[in-house]
Amino acid sequence: MRLKKVKGAEDKINKSLYIVKDPDYYRGNFKSLFKNDNPIEVEIGMGKGTFIINKALKNTNINYIGIEKFDSVIVRAVEKLENLEIKNLKLIKMDAIEIDNIFDKEIDVVYLNFSDPWPKTRHEKRRLSSINFLKKYDSIFKNSKKIIMKTDNRKLFEYSIKSFTDYNYKIDEISLDLYDDDIKENIPTEYETKFVSKGQKIYMISVYKNI
Amino acid sequence: MRLKKVKGAEDKINKSLYIVKDPDYYRGNFKSLFKNDNPIEVEIGMGKGTFIINKALKNTNINYIGIEKFDSVIVRAVEKLENLEIKNLKLIKMDAIEIDNIFDKEIDVVYLNFSDPWPKTRHEKRRLSSINFLKKYDSIFKNSKKIIMKTDNRKLFEYSIKSFTDYNYKIDEISLDLYDDDIKENIPTEYETKFVSKGQKIYMISVYKNI
Repeated sequence: MRLKKVKGAEDKINKSLYIVKDPDYYRGNFKSLFKNDNPIEVEIGMGKGTFIINKALKNTNINYIGIEKFDSVIVRAVEKLENLEIKNLKLIKMDAIEIDNIFDKEIDVVYLNFSDPWPKTRHEKRRLSSINFLKKYDSIFKNSKKIIMKTDNRKLFEYSIKSFTDYNYKIDEISLDLYDDDIKENIPTEYETKFVSKGQKIYMISVYKNI
Repeated sequence: MRLKKVKGAEDKINKSLYIVKDPDYYRGNFKSLFKNDNPIEVEIGMGKGTFIINKALKNTNINYIGIEKFDSVIVRAVEKLENLEIKNLKLIKMDAIEIDNIFDKEIDVVYLNFSDPWPKTRHEKRRLSSINFLKKYDSIFKNSKKIIMKTDNRKLFEYSIKSFTDYNYKIDEISLDLYDDDIKENIPTEYETKFVSKGQKIYMISVYKNI
């Protein structure tokens, strides 16, 4: 993602009620933040938030947490939320690498949407579907594990199928052309809408591991 | 595959030295047919034989067996072989459903090239990558198991990725666009050449299970 410096971003982010300022405090007890026992689903790298906001609006009995590290991006989500009151949505400004220090056995689903493909082999560990990250997710899931990934990047998708199954995830659903399939309830991200309008294929996979 | 009746096919097949007339006799001892201990690789549904013939010509230290059930198709392979002497190639006219009655702990690799997708759910068991067939292959493999599949059929490919990994195969290589990748030593089938010339994508996956 190209990053532009957004004036006043930090200030806007700090003032937003959606932003969890002290995520450490809630570790292992994020449900107290939502004041209910509903499932908690996390989008890692939520970008400008279109996906996670629409998810939260649609499924009020599920709690959503969007994670994003860049001020200039997360501020766009904050702006979208300014006049909305969505009780089942929170945002955290953080680097995904810290995910296992923030959550502890409390997440039901991880969404990876159009993640950075990090195409160079020497950057493999930075891919959000690498063994490096799959190990981190292990400790954040509550019971069974579930990861749902969408991407337009063929190489990242091939890599991820292999990585998930190497790490003993089983495939629940897979599509090599999501928009050519019957997609019930697909919620697109900003990127996705743009890519689809250009005629690009969207790949999707959902994987699970029961404990 | 559309089938035309080919005049004199049965006669030509019966006369070919490449055809194994009594496969039952060699069960568990196909190496005696080749008179060596080289690995044995099988293509199930070899069609007109272009792939398996070129494989055999290229890799003389591997034995190849092509399997095909239709006279009108296998006869085309037989015709191609009429003036060739390839010692590491044999053909068997049989239905793939019988594969575990023909081989016993002696196969190193199974090739599934452009297999019939059997798109209807009620025909799932006929797909060569279904659990039904994966169970049959279990008893034909010598030591470790290896299956290499190519197809242009997206739905069959999605199904197969799931089926292989559900059955605890691990992925060695996967490509969602084989001809866009660096393909070293890819040998195309008749179908493949035709599809590629039409601009269709070729999917490839190789999976393995070590014992």
